[in-house]
Amino acid sequence: MRHGESLANRDNEYTGWTDVSLTDKGVQQAISAGKLIKETGIEFSHVHTSMLQRAIVTADLVLDQINQNWLPITKTWRLNERHYGALRGLNKDKTRVMYGVEQVAKWRRSFDAVPPLLDQPEYDRRYAQNGILSEPLGESLHMAYDRLIPYWTSHVAPELLDGKNQLIVAHGSSLRALIKYLESISDAGIDGVEVENGEPIVYELDQYLNIVSKSILK
Amino acid sequence: MRHGESLANRDNEYTGWTDVSLTDKGVQQAISAGKLIKETGIEFSHVHTSMLQRAIVTADLVLDQINQNWLPITKTWRLNERHYGALRGLNKDKTRVMYGVEQVAKWRRSFDAVPPLLDQPEYDRRYAQNGILSEPLGESLHMAYDRLIPYWTSHVAPELLDGKNQLIVAHGSSLRALIKYLESISDAGIDGVEVENGEPIVYELDQYLNIVSKSILK
Repeated sequence: MRHGESLANRDNEYTGWTDVSLTDKGVQQAISAGKLIKETGIEFSHVHTSMLQRAIVTADLVLDQINQNWLPITKTWRLNERHYGALRGLNKDKTRVMYGVEQVAKWRRSFDAVPPLLDQPEYDRRYAQNGILSEPLGESLHMAYDRLIPYWTSHVAPELLDGKNQLIVAHGSSLRALIKYLESISDAGIDGVEVENGEPIVYELDQYLNIVSKSILK
Repeated sequence: MRHGESLANRDNEYTGWTDVSLTDKGVQQAISAGKLIKETGIEFSHVHTSMLQRAIVTADLVLDQINQNWLPITKTWRLNERHYGALRGLNKDKTRVMYGVEQVAKWRRSFDAVPPLLDQPEYDRRYAQNGILSEPLGESLHMAYDRLIPYWTSHVAPELLDGKNQLIVAHGSSLRALIKYLESISDAGIDGVEVENGEPIVYELDQYLNIVSKSILK
């Protein structure tokens, strides 16, 4: 599932790796999502989330609702939102005025478009501690895909193959990358895929991790 | 630090491994503790807590306040509260009527007194998943000490020796066991040691992990 509404979602701004908090609405969305997951009765063995508080706090609120706070949580930069480079912090409407509607649509939706890059990497203790010495300067969806899928392969898929349900709480674009992989969506086809704040998507997979069913909890 | 006030603290009941939630007051205590820790400017590399929600939620609330949500959290049964056996769920005043003041004082404060045991172990998925097939039937403080200190030695001490600050969020009695170890308190001396809900204790340690200073944040 995607995190609840963040301050940047509310203000219609690009965020990426900027660490913004949930709005009150976002908190409520996370709690509601937790209640919906509770109704399914799903028991997880592990939670996977990003190193950004909007996803981590959403995960915490869901775990409160489903009484599974005790689950191990892995927080990894590989599930972070796509890094929006020099666009981060900018209002989406303003960028349309600055760069044109078509260019902005490409940056937002196409698989390979790289946003304007930062001039230099930034230091953040959370990434340094985890062996990433600097943040990316900006990422296409493709670049986010390439650092996310290895995590799925090494940390999520083995647990699923062992029959254990996994909860992933991440971001609009990092989840688009994962959905592209899971559903074998073409580079062009991922253009139209959106993931809403705080709406859990339940995938049931067979023993080869092919999709048996998909449902969105609302 | 010890978790904020729980429902069982409020109702003056023995809890142990029973998984009760924080009261509103307990939530506020955790938030206040987070603010006090924030003022110290301490940056942690890791959080260690129990598998019980009153400690986990306290840790989450502290991390919110200090903007360190991204820290890895290990949730281990070794930091769980001492298991109160057949006393759990009972009101502390009632047990004084049932068993006498002196006996209850022994169970609560002495290092070696074992509480009345449960008749049979209970199954709980969280412990089964972590290789503990059944909960203990009840523990003396000594028994809790013996399962807690190996965790300190293998998971906390090496990080400290590497110069990294560690945050431990646990329980009244499991912290008494840890304090006994850290401060080399005698079996008899631990009798008088109490740890208050939601009051962080800051230890500064030297390169041999001897205590240089101790302060309680209020």
